[in-house]
Amino acid sequence: MAKNAHIVFTPSGRRGDFPIGTPVLTAARSLGVDIDSVCGGRGICGRCQVEAGEGEFAKHKIVSSCSNMTGFSSVEERYASKKGMKEGRRLSCQAMIEGDLLIDVPAESQVHKQVVRKRADVREIEIDPPIRLHYIEVAEPDMHHPSGDLERLEDALEAQWGLTNLHCDLRTLQTLQPVLRKGKWQVTVAVENEKTIIAVWPGYKENAFGIAVDLGSTTVAAHLCDLQTGEVTASSGIMNPQIRFGEDLMSRVSYVMMNPGGDKEMTVAVREALDIIIGVVADEGKIERSDILSMTFVGNPVMHHLLLGIDPTELGGAPFALTLNSSIDLYASELGLNISPDGRVYVLPCIAGHVGADTAGVILSEGPHLQDEVTLICDVGTNAEIVLGSKDRLLACSSPTGPAFEGAQITSGQRAAPGAIERIRIDPETLEPKYRVIGCDLWSNEEGFAEQTKSTGVTGICGSGIIEAIGEMFLAGIIQTDGIIDGSLSEKSPRVKFNGKTYDYVISENEPLITVTQTDVRAIQLAKAALYAGVKLLMEKLGVDSIDRIQLAGAFGSHIDVKYAMVIGLIPDCDLERVKSAGNAAGTGARIALLNKAARKEIEDVVRRVEKIETAVEPKFQEHFVNAMGMPNTIDEFVNLAKVVNLPERKVGAPATEGTAEGGRRRRRRR
Amino acid sequence: MAKNAHIVFTPSGRRGDFPIGTPVLTAARSLGVDIDSVCGGRGICGRCQVEAGEGEFAKHKIVSSCSNMTGFSSVEERYASKKGMKEGRRLSCQAMIEGDLLIDVPAESQVHKQVVRKRADVREIEIDPPIRLHYIEVAEPDMHHPSGDLERLEDALEAQWGLTNLHCDLRTLQTLQPVLRKGKWQVTVAVENEKTIIAVWPGYKENAFGIAVDLGSTTVAAHLCDLQTGEVTASSGIMNPQIRFGEDLMSRVSYVMMNPGGDKEMTVAVREALDIIIGVVADEGKIERSDILSMTFVGNPVMHHLLLGIDPTELGGAPFALTLNSSIDLYASELGLNISPDGRVYVLPCIAGHVGADTAGVILSEGPHLQDEVTLICDVGTNAEIVLGSKDRLLACSSPTGPAFEGAQITSGQRAAPGAIERIRIDPETLEPKYRVIGCDLWSNEEGFAEQTKSTGVTGICGSGIIEAIGEMFLAGIIQTDGIIDGSLSEKSPRVKFNGKTYDYVISENEPLITVTQTDVRAIQLAKAALYAGVKLLMEKLGVDSIDRIQLAGAFGSHIDVKYAMVIGLIPDCDLERVKSAGNAAGTGARIALLNKAARKEIEDVVRRVEKIETAVEPKFQEHFVNAMGMPNTIDEFVNLAKVVNLPERKVGAPATEGTAEGGRRRRRRR
Repeated sequence: MAKNAHIVFTPSGRRGDFPIGTPVLTAARSLGVDIDSVCGGRGICGRCQVEAGEGEFAKHKIVSSCSNMTGFSSVEERYASKKGMKEGRRLSCQAMIEGDLLIDVPAESQVHKQVVRKRADVREIEIDPPIRLHYIEVAEPDMHHPSGDLERLEDALEAQWGLTNLHCDLRTLQTLQPVLRKGKWQVTVAVENEKTIIAVWPGYKENAFGIAVDLGSTTVAAHLCDLQTGEVTASSGIMNPQIRFGEDLMSRVSYVMMNPGGDKEMTVAVREALDIIIGVVADEGKIERSDILSMTFVGNPVMHHLLLGIDPTELGGAPFALTLNSSIDLYASELGLNISPDGRVYVLPCIAGHVGADTAGVILSEGPHLQDEVTLICDVGTNAEIVLGSKDRLLACSSPTGPAFEGAQITSGQRAAPGAIERIRIDPETLEPKYRVIGCDLWSNEEGFAEQTKSTGVTGICGSGIIEAIGEMFLAGIIQTDGIIDGSLSEKSPRVKFNGKTYDYVISENEPLITVTQTDVRAIQLAKAALYAGVKLLMEKLGVDSIDRIQLAGAFGSHIDVKYAMVIGLIPDCDLERVKSAGNAAGTGARIALLNKAARKEIEDVVRRVEKIETAVEPKFQEHFVNAMGMPNTIDEFVNLAKVVNLPERKVGAPATEGTAEGGRRRRRRR
Repeated sequence: MAKNAHIVFTPSGRRGDFPIGTPVLTAARSLGVDIDSVCGGRGICGRCQVEAGEGEFAKHKIVSSCSNMTGFSSVEERYASKKGMKEGRRLSCQAMIEGDLLIDVPAESQVHKQVVRKRADVREIEIDPPIRLHYIEVAEPDMHHPSGDLERLEDALEAQWGLTNLHCDLRTLQTLQPVLRKGKWQVTVAVENEKTIIAVWPGYKENAFGIAVDLGSTTVAAHLCDLQTGEVTASSGIMNPQIRFGEDLMSRVSYVMMNPGGDKEMTVAVREALDIIIGVVADEGKIERSDILSMTFVGNPVMHHLLLGIDPTELGGAPFALTLNSSIDLYASELGLNISPDGRVYVLPCIAGHVGADTAGVILSEGPHLQDEVTLICDVGTNAEIVLGSKDRLLACSSPTGPAFEGAQITSGQRAAPGAIERIRIDPETLEPKYRVIGCDLWSNEEGFAEQTKSTGVTGICGSGIIEAIGEMFLAGIIQTDGIIDGSLSEKSPRVKFNGKTYDYVISENEPLITVTQTDVRAIQLAKAALYAGVKLLMEKLGVDSIDRIQLAGAFGSHIDVKYAMVIGLIPDCDLERVKSAGNAAGTGARIALLNKAARKEIEDVVRRVEKIETAVEPKFQEHFVNAMGMPNTIDEFVNLAKVVNLPERKVGAPATEGTAEGGRRRRRRR
């Protein structure tokens, strides 16, 4: 009579009785234990490794011994000698049950592994990509039972992997005959969504890859990921070649309006850049382009449209109609991308107007829709995208902050590059500044600074530097609540200088002269007021008057000191401990969508639920904007901020009336 | 109080009560009456025309009057003046019910119209293409309710046509913005399978088209069809340019084996030919290529593979493995075909080995799977495809008949062209022949024949001519049961001539000399025996010893006199009245699949059920082959045939032993 043994799997805790001689993998599968396998139990892939417990496990009420499994088989010997195996590990497809066992499935043997992210405040990425590899043995053709190669391949996938009703893409079909014969009827098949055969390789294929792309107006960033482990095996970023058509998005849209066919030129340009970056990460990752089966994309609506070959002209003016805001699944070949011939592309959904797939990526990465707390997410660039809400409701809008935060249209402004001032402190007594530049760890008043910055010089102020400069000027009393540089201080310090019309603050008198002018302050006021007004509008719509946490996404968010962002009133008051940089959250969103199929559904659902607010048609926006011109704000209190810094008393040259604000608004429009 | 009227629709007989003022179309829809509309009740398309009955209709228990509808509206006036309307017709979307009515929906107003085929013995084609046009009015973008153009388009399709969960293909997306704006938010959308948006035109679009293609080894034939009416609006055929790589299929496969990349050359060649023929039928039909939304293809397995860009090498030798035998749905762009940017291609399924999508087309056209009777279908070419069965079971095989039936490898053989003998009669007393040639209606012994054939001459014998020649030679006693030309007759007639080794029969002594040699007879014997053996094999597998009807498909089947096909034993005995030419049944099958989506499912199901017999591995094939070498057969009786012609008694030089037959088989193999 057949004897049964009792088996417990950890960490799942699933348990059951199995006849002596049952392979451990078979037992695990029958209990629904999450355990990986590409080769289908042939001892080739080594993904199904387990460890038997030794001794008595009271918690699980079992006495286990590794001697209750068959001994190390020749198949395991072969695998271990080729690829190496940790002490105590067994291939569960080879080890057979001989008695009671506690079997541990280590994290790396689980199908739904999790990738731990560096930041503690975000959820982990569960690896469950739409594309999986399956090793199979296909029946050879037989004249007595005529059937097509595809039919026999599909039969094998059904018999060996339980996959039914599959479809095979044309370019994979075109390779099927030679691949089957080269692999001597043993092949590895990539199947998407348990539905479509998208690649076939002869013999056993270890890894498949995908690329997550953040298609920014300035930079195109790509991460090559192993679709099985989630590991990023190569990363690269290159300048977006569309810059030659215009620095910012709106100038590119203008280019299209002025040059018929300009959209096609820009589509060609960005696809060429993608082709380059695919080559770069493939080389760096030491893989073939044909090993890349999937790409995901995030990007703002203009980049999104240009990637897809859609004319972005409509995004250049009201009513800012997108062609589509849903996600889109494509063949890579439809976008002219040279990866695996039937490789896939998934573009995340856009939200509305100028809130694009990049924002969808940010939401997917930061998960405000999963939180009880009210989260504010700002992605600051030439346009700021703002998302506010919690699991109950999410709102989004975009606000035209202009290029000031990127250091453009600022007298001494420049791009973030070596030599640019990125940190600054002003002594409130002497009004003397000290600063740090990119490429040097010393403050300007420290010894060796001059020598260390000799090669780069001190060339200007970058985006984060200008925020600190204005924040410090405000804290030092140089700038009043209304943003006016207090000319009376010119008597106290030569750094406050009359320029014949208004006053400047001189940071460095060397060549080049680095100053912050009244016009610069106005530009920053207008930009930060636009952002803040958008935030206020969403707060009002959501019905909240405080925010639990703030995530600053994007490169700008990574570099600024959030304290100064709050000092100048770019972001609303909040516990400073709860204000964080989210880094390249959009790119992370693309990576999540690459590695987890449920995440695609999730972001599609969330985006559908997001309430889109168009600031241009909201009458209250203007009022919020006017109030937000003040430092940090004409009416809002900054209680949390006041605990950390000495906020000057409200001091204005003249009351911030409708008139002056309108003036500001008008000037902004003229820009 | 609202009054109701009683309405009866014919021919459906559906009836119901409706409030006064209900549009007739609305009433029809609510009863599920089959009535067409593209414009959605806007009086633009004119497809919903109906006619009211006048007087008492006892059968329907109703008294009807056209005065029980509202009068001719201005919308109808406009339509009638533009497009014309038959007396008594009304647009059912405009005419409203004012009292009891009998409403007739004429055939042309029904969605599921039927196309009457010329032959009485086949079913009609019901028009129900996968692709339908829908005229819609799309909401304009609104900043207060931001949404993408696609989203609003989909909303309109849902609200106005009940279509939900639609997907839009990329190339259509790329045109969406300009088309919506050009059409002032009124557009016509082509939707495939109520699922995918595959084209959008500004304003109202009347017609969409498809092309059914029969991809033959020699000829590529295309039929342009109106997808709404099913009408063939243009047809064209061109030579298959692959002929430059080899006359027949096997020489093309050999070309690939000898020339790496040869398959790609041939794929390019056939796709170029398709591009030409698309242009020809579009011009002839006076439409744009972008009006063509769909193409369907039939073809033998080699053509099928080459069309799809699959190397056909495996089809050149046992086990004759196809890459796929299922049907395939593609974008036309995947095959490089220049029709509507998101136009679709459907390739019918192959059956097995050398029984391809052309045979699937033949089955779909001839419908043996719908019959109680046992039908035999033969498609004769270099390979003969044979299908046998009824609604209970269908069997199929192919048999290598060689090129003899096409007039090749026959001493005086030639392609069917002016000057080729296609009909022949031999006087059994005098052994004198008379014949007719292609391009002349006179027999050779009639007055004026010489003059009328002066320009073409009498140049040879075409495939159907050689069948008749050998049939008549047999009936006249010139050829014995075993196929030997009876040399003793040379004493009786100078037309039987000794050539030093065997005897010839001289048909024409003019230049060029036209004869039938013993070798020619042998070649035809081998070819017809191959076909007949295949048929016998299938009959045996099916367990029948007689056949109810025979359909001869293809060009060869259209030209031969079926009586002679039976006399030489190419086809089995059958009531001659039940032996018919099916014409280009494969092409008709492609047209059915183009016009009726259910037919695609149907042929896929049927093909899956067809039992594929590989003659090469069937031991009985050889025996049937040997018996079939005799005229008409060494052992089978031809009872039906004997009623119509005087079949000579069995007369052989030597018994048809295993030995001689094997000899024949060997010779055949050497060819």
